[in-house]
Amino acid sequence: MADNKSLTARTEDFSAWYNEVVLRAELADYSPVRGCMVIRPYGYRLWELMRDQLDTRFKETGHQNAYFPLFIPQSFLEREAQHVEGFAKEAAIVTHTRLKAKEGGGLIPDPDSKLEEPLIIRPTSETIIYEMFSKWVQSYRDLPLLYNQWANVVRWEMRTRLFLRTTEFLWQEGHTAHVTEAEAEEETLRMLGVYREFMEGWMAMPVVTGPKSASETFPGALRTYATEALMQDNRALQAGTSHNLGQNFSRQFELKFASEAGSEEYAWNTSWGVSTRMVGALVMTHGDDRGLVMPPRLAPIQVVIVPIFRKDEERNLVMEKARDLAGMLRPIRTHIDDRSNLTPGAKFYEWEMKGVPFRIEVGPKDISKQQVVLVRRVVAEGEERKQFLPETDVIGSMGRRLDEFQAWLMERARERREASSHRGVDSYERFREIIEGPGGFVYTGWCGSAECEARVKEETKATIRVLPFEEFRSPEAPARCIVCEGESVAEALWAKAY
Amino acid sequence: MADNKSLTARTEDFSAWYNEVVLRAELADYSPVRGCMVIRPYGYRLWELMRDQLDTRFKETGHQNAYFPLFIPQSFLEREAQHVEGFAKEAAIVTHTRLKAKEGGGLIPDPDSKLEEPLIIRPTSETIIYEMFSKWVQSYRDLPLLYNQWANVVRWEMRTRLFLRTTEFLWQEGHTAHVTEAEAEEETLRMLGVYREFMEGWMAMPVVTGPKSASETFPGALRTYATEALMQDNRALQAGTSHNLGQNFSRQFELKFASEAGSEEYAWNTSWGVSTRMVGALVMTHGDDRGLVMPPRLAPIQVVIVPIFRKDEERNLVMEKARDLAGMLRPIRTHIDDRSNLTPGAKFYEWEMKGVPFRIEVGPKDISKQQVVLVRRVVAEGEERKQFLPETDVIGSMGRRLDEFQAWLMERARERREASSHRGVDSYERFREIIEGPGGFVYTGWCGSAECEARVKEETKATIRVLPFEEFRSPEAPARCIVCEGESVAEALWAKAY
Repeated sequence: MADNKSLTARTEDFSAWYNEVVLRAELADYSPVRGCMVIRPYGYRLWELMRDQLDTRFKETGHQNAYFPLFIPQSFLEREAQHVEGFAKEAAIVTHTRLKAKEGGGLIPDPDSKLEEPLIIRPTSETIIYEMFSKWVQSYRDLPLLYNQWANVVRWEMRTRLFLRTTEFLWQEGHTAHVTEAEAEEETLRMLGVYREFMEGWMAMPVVTGPKSASETFPGALRTYATEALMQDNRALQAGTSHNLGQNFSRQFELKFASEAGSEEYAWNTSWGVSTRMVGALVMTHGDDRGLVMPPRLAPIQVVIVPIFRKDEERNLVMEKARDLAGMLRPIRTHIDDRSNLTPGAKFYEWEMKGVPFRIEVGPKDISKQQVVLVRRVVAEGEERKQFLPETDVIGSMGRRLDEFQAWLMERARERREASSHRGVDSYERFREIIEGPGGFVYTGWCGSAECEARVKEETKATIRVLPFEEFRSPEAPARCIVCEGESVAEALWAKAY
Repeated sequence: MADNKSLTARTEDFSAWYNEVVLRAELADYSPVRGCMVIRPYGYRLWELMRDQLDTRFKETGHQNAYFPLFIPQSFLEREAQHVEGFAKEAAIVTHTRLKAKEGGGLIPDPDSKLEEPLIIRPTSETIIYEMFSKWVQSYRDLPLLYNQWANVVRWEMRTRLFLRTTEFLWQEGHTAHVTEAEAEEETLRMLGVYREFMEGWMAMPVVTGPKSASETFPGALRTYATEALMQDNRALQAGTSHNLGQNFSRQFELKFASEAGSEEYAWNTSWGVSTRMVGALVMTHGDDRGLVMPPRLAPIQVVIVPIFRKDEERNLVMEKARDLAGMLRPIRTHIDDRSNLTPGAKFYEWEMKGVPFRIEVGPKDISKQQVVLVRRVVAEGEERKQFLPETDVIGSMGRRLDEFQAWLMERARERREASSHRGVDSYERFREIIEGPGGFVYTGWCGSAECEARVKEETKATIRVLPFEEFRSPEAPARCIVCEGESVAEALWAKAY
């Protein structure tokens, strides 16, 4: 149960606000294992709704789910040079398989159970999956392989944040193999599109998409594409990535096939993933100083009904009405809060903290007037959150109200992002003023050199989030690199990021 | 793709038959990690259908899903004495968190990254879950907590078998906390009932239920109940367990609450689980010498349509008809096998291996007669598998045919089990003849002593599977223990088990 103190204001300390919301809305809690969290039922239900949506889209685009081992032999990780470089420093390593009694009490890993080859808990599964693909693929007829896996992965992180960066997290990882490079590229972009559609249509979170620069590319990939969102503190969050892996892994894992012409060829791979990090992104996109705001399409509870009564004899009447309303609102996800040990005020507070889109209050007087009180979790400035409405009107309009709220949240998020997107910045000095001041997205020219990128990162902590696709680019392409003033080869989107 | 050699016969080598079916039906494959398997898309889809069914039932009975860390601190495991005793010898232990370059090339776990306290990959999550519960529960009003987790777990097994016993496996683990012992017992039995209903109603696999003897009780539990099924080789398989944990864990993890009367009390816990092992049970219950037989309710593909044509100009006609049929059969799960590089015979072989309940063959002649060929995967002896039927009849009757097939599989499995269930066995000699001969379920009297149980295990490898609930017991209760001939205190169900 949420306690009744008010939250730290976002403007005061965004990071404290975020942690408080996640904890008090009961999305997650800290665990006794350093860097690992517990996803509580309310947070897990949100994740399930996200997962079901994405899973449906993956299946519609021809993918099948499968499950591969948690353990990666160390030698597998070593095969792809950049890949091991990227993950060696955050590997959870299994070295023993038995505990034995220690002299003087307690247990120690039994030295006799030491593994010849250590096993790494998967930080991602390219290596083991392509090893298996190489067993299954003989001919071009066996391709494409379009696989997805829902799984937990582990990356030993030093600084962790609930949902945003945890040692263990839940995700999906898509892995595919194709006959041609063009097909792999098409798949990479298709899945990036699926992510964007989900994030904008369901999370109500606008994203900018495009390729990453070489320095931000996934270890072992040819090209990485990402969806980047802007949080309320004007820091960017990478919400999903899709990689064209080229033939880097197929060459290391002998993933070959006989082509239609009879020659032996290496397959072309892609991988793509989103994780429980999206829960954090949702919180930081829509939440306010009263707590979470759930976009209706993903809200575990879309409408909460709070029955209001003083005397016991009113209870039955009001509860019956609450149940009637819930029945008539089906299939909208409703919840009747019938706890008898809390005041209505405490309930209102809790459901606002949990971001339920609409609250219906109903008491004996409302019933006699055939009306209810309807409260929307958040409205435009100047508008009234609370309305007294005929019961039939509320029943009939609730679907539309949820849709409107969903669209309004998306529009609000887009406006906020646009208000914090800076274009036409013409000097490095001005660039730094923005990045080190209000923050946000800054679009500039870039000469393409890793040196300029590294300098910005060192001096400001900002990075190139993506090289935005055409639709996001400035009407007039910037001519000069914002750092060295050399000729610009691509427009870059810069920001400090989570 | 399945290869076309015939399977080893079940009567010849049941174990070889089982492995061949699992591999050739593409349910799973061996992985490069010892004892771990890969669940392939067809097997994973079956698991998803099982999971969705169970998950719906868990939610209907008031449970919520959550997610707890993969890692258990070693000290947690040590707190409950029997619990650690049960799992210490099969623990995958994480000791380091970073790889570093070794002199002369390659990588080693970085000694500087050694963890102060080793982490155990969860073999089960009682300890970490009750630790969290103790943070969340203050008062009786916070109870019951009814949680479930879908997760991977690891038990370092020496002898592994695909699905039946693997180092890593997927499962669900329910964990609950209650105010009273009676409530905990009620919950334990309720979930056992949910398992039974699922196994009999959906897997078409009859089970015997009841408590385990003390020696087979879960480490740390007060009482363990199980569902036991009999495989075609007359060995028992424990398909699900439900544990009343009493206050054993709540005392170790300080899971206390203020009672309504104001006193401080320890909560009463239950836990219950089923795993991917059920896939193996399904294979061994229904499969035959042509491969898998899927009970329709869980079949990833319920009806496969094989279009048959010789000339290219027939192709369009036949494919159009196949799509029409699939459309009219919705929401039945159908699949059109339109591969052009396989003969119809090869397709028939593959879908029979994969156990698809019904096959529809349709060719130009059938279309002109408005008929189709319908083939049921398996029929009673003497009946005809293949029928020529009017198309409209097949469309209209397919739902009923699937139901009938489901019921028939259950009935066949029950008859088989009953034929291998032995009652009224009156001497230990005869008992051994059965156990060491044909095998099966043997119901006998038991004096309740662990010594008699141990003697049987040592001499015959049989164990008490459960002390069956009333409905499964023999009409006349056995008076004497089958081993020592002392007075019987309970009827016991014995078998050799997986």
